[in-house]
Amino acid sequence: VSLRDEIGEQPEVVRSVLVANESAVTDVAAAIRERDAEFVLVAARGTSDHAAIYAQYVLGARNGLPVALAAPSLMSRFGTRPRLRRALVIGISQSGGSPDIVAVLREGRAQGALTLAITNDPMSELAAAAEWSLDLKAGTERSIAATKTYTAELLALAMLSAALADPAGSDDCRDLAELPARIEAALDGEEQIRRAAMARVGAGNFVVLGRGFEYATAREWALKLKEIAGVFAEGYSSADFQHGPSTLVGHGLPVLAIAPAGPLHDELIELLGSLQAERGADVVVVSDQPDSPSGAAVLPLPAGTPDWLGPLVAIVPAQLFSYHLALARGHDPETPRGLRKVTRTL
Amino acid sequence: VSLRDEIGEQPEVVRSVLVANESAVTDVAAAIRERDAEFVLVAARGTSDHAAIYAQYVLGARNGLPVALAAPSLMSRFGTRPRLRRALVIGISQSGGSPDIVAVLREGRAQGALTLAITNDPMSELAAAAEWSLDLKAGTERSIAATKTYTAELLALAMLSAALADPAGSDDCRDLAELPARIEAALDGEEQIRRAAMARVGAGNFVVLGRGFEYATAREWALKLKEIAGVFAEGYSSADFQHGPSTLVGHGLPVLAIAPAGPLHDELIELLGSLQAERGADVVVVSDQPDSPSGAAVLPLPAGTPDWLGPLVAIVPAQLFSYHLALARGHDPETPRGLRKVTRTL
Repeated sequence: VSLRDEIGEQPEVVRSVLVANESAVTDVAAAIRERDAEFVLVAARGTSDHAAIYAQYVLGARNGLPVALAAPSLMSRFGTRPRLRRALVIGISQSGGSPDIVAVLREGRAQGALTLAITNDPMSELAAAAEWSLDLKAGTERSIAATKTYTAELLALAMLSAALADPAGSDDCRDLAELPARIEAALDGEEQIRRAAMARVGAGNFVVLGRGFEYATAREWALKLKEIAGVFAEGYSSADFQHGPSTLVGHGLPVLAIAPAGPLHDELIELLGSLQAERGADVVVVSDQPDSPSGAAVLPLPAGTPDWLGPLVAIVPAQLFSYHLALARGHDPETPRGLRKVTRTL
Repeated sequence: VSLRDEIGEQPEVVRSVLVANESAVTDVAAAIRERDAEFVLVAARGTSDHAAIYAQYVLGARNGLPVALAAPSLMSRFGTRPRLRRALVIGISQSGGSPDIVAVLREGRAQGALTLAITNDPMSELAAAAEWSLDLKAGTERSIAATKTYTAELLALAMLSAALADPAGSDDCRDLAELPARIEAALDGEEQIRRAAMARVGAGNFVVLGRGFEYATAREWALKLKEIAGVFAEGYSSADFQHGPSTLVGHGLPVLAIAPAGPLHDELIELLGSLQAERGADVVVVSDQPDSPSGAAVLPLPAGTPDWLGPLVAIVPAQLFSYHLALARGHDPETPRGLRKVTRTL
C-alpha cells in the first residue's frame, strides 16, 4: 500500500467513519450537553494538530464553544494543573501513543472534566485514558505521512459538531453523506494537479494561505509539502500573513491558497491578485469559484460543499499536489528522511 | 530613531512599564480573582500574537488558567458568538487599531466577560472597547518591525501573572526588578551575535526552535528574521518539530534554538546534538548553560533568569541577530517591503 493508495482510499474511509461512529457520536454529544462545558481544550501534535485547528473553527462557528489548543508541556514538563473542571478535553492522535497527549487527558479526567479520545487505535493509551472514545476505523495507515487518518479525524469532529448542533439535523446528515462523492470529484482533478506540481518542481520555498475553516488546510498542506516533498513551506491565516510575513513574497514565489466560496473568499482573492500583480507571486488557487486572478493555476473543487465541511474536500488536491511534487523532485514520498510513523514526545 | 535604537531602549522601557502599570495590574488582578474566570481568551495578531503565546504559558504554568488563542474571524466574519460569560478576554495590540481584535473584546464585554486591553495607545479603539486597560507606555515605536513594544507586552502579562499568583509576592517583585539589568547584559553580547549573523549571510532558510516559555521567542525570532532580514524562517515548538518538519534539516541548514536552563533544556540540547551530528545542521544556541553541542555558535544569556521571565531577555539576542543579518544581507531593516506599521485586518 502506497501513500497514493491511501489518498485514494479517502472516499471509502469517509463512508466507513460515518457508519462506525454514528451512535458513539450521538452518545458523546448527549454527554457534552449534559455536562454543559464552558470551553474545549484539544491536545494534539503534527497532522492531528491541524485537526485540532479544524475543531477550533467547527466547534466555534457552529456550536459556540471556545476552543483552546493545549500546550502539552505545561502539564507533562512543568507539572502545571490548569483548571479543567468545566472543560471538554479532547485528545486527537492517529496512534494514540504520544505520552504528552495522554497526560493532558489524564489530568482532565482527574479533575472531573469530560474527556474524549479520537484515535485510530481503540486499544491505545489515549483511548484508555479518556472517558469517551471515537474509534476512527480508517484502517491501518502505513505511510509515514498521514492522509486518510487526517480526513477521518476531521470527519469525527464534523460529526460531533453536527450532533451537538441538532441531534436530528437532517441537512447536516445529507451534507455528511455527500462527502464521499465530493472527495471522489476532487480526486478526479489529479491530472490538472499533477501538471501544476510539475510546473513548480524548481521551487524550494512555498507559502500556503487559508483562513477560517481552511486555515487548517493551509497548515496541513504546508506540513505535507515538507514531509513528502522536502520543501520549505509555511501555512498562514491570510490575516496573520498580512501582519508581517507577506514581505517575503518576491518574483516567482509559489503562493498556494485555499479559496472556496464563503465569507472570506473575496478578500483572499483580492490579496492573491495584489501579490501576483505587485510582487510577481506565482499563484495557485484551490477553489470552486471562477474568479481566480488571471494567470493563476486553478485546482478545481466540486461546487456546493458547505464551508464547515470544506476542509475534508480541499485537503485532497493539497495531498495530491504534495505527492506529485515529491515525485517530480525525485523524493520518495513513502520514507521522509529521519521520520517514524509514531513520534513519542514527552 | 532607528530599529537598533529601539532594541537598545528596552531596559529603559522595562523600567517605565514596571512603574507605569504597577497599580493598574494590581486592580486588574483583583477583578480577575473576584470574577473567578474559568479560562482566558486572547486575541492578537503578528508580533502581539507571540505575546499571546507567552500568555498561554505564563498564565497556564503559574496561575493554572487555560488560555485559548482566539480565531478572530469566527466573530468578525462568521458572526459567531462563542460562549464567553466565564472568560477573561484579553486583546493585545501595539496600535489598538485592528478591527478584528476589537470585535473580540466587544463581544466578550457584551456577554459580561471580564475584558482587558493591552496596548501602547490608551486612546485606541481597543482600549475603549475593554473594561480594563493596561497602557504600555513604551513610547512611540517608529520602526515597522516591533521590538520594544513586544517586550512591553510580555512584561505587562508577566506583571499580571505575578499579581494573580501572590499579590504581595516579594520574590516575583525582585525578579521583575532585575529585568532591566539582565536585558542590558544580553545587549552586551552584541559583537558575538553580529559575528554569528555575518557567518550565516548566505542562508535563505532558517529553522527556529524553542519549547515551553521560549516557544514564544522561537515564533517571534522567526517573524523578525522574515520582516527585517527577508529570509524564510519558521518557529517551532521542538516537540512539534519532531512530528514531521525535522525531515527538512540537511547539511548547513541554520537551526537556531533558545535553550536556557529549565525542565526542557536537556532534551533540546540532545535534539540539537543529533541534528548537528546526523544531519549536518548549523546550530546556533541562545543559552545561559555551557553544554551546547561542540561546534555550535553560542549566543550567551545572563545566568539566573527565572524561566517565566526568560522570554523578555532571550528575545534580545534574537532581535540583534535578525538586525545584523539584515545589514549583512544589504536589507534596510527599517522598511520591510510592502509592510505598514499598522495592519487593519477584518
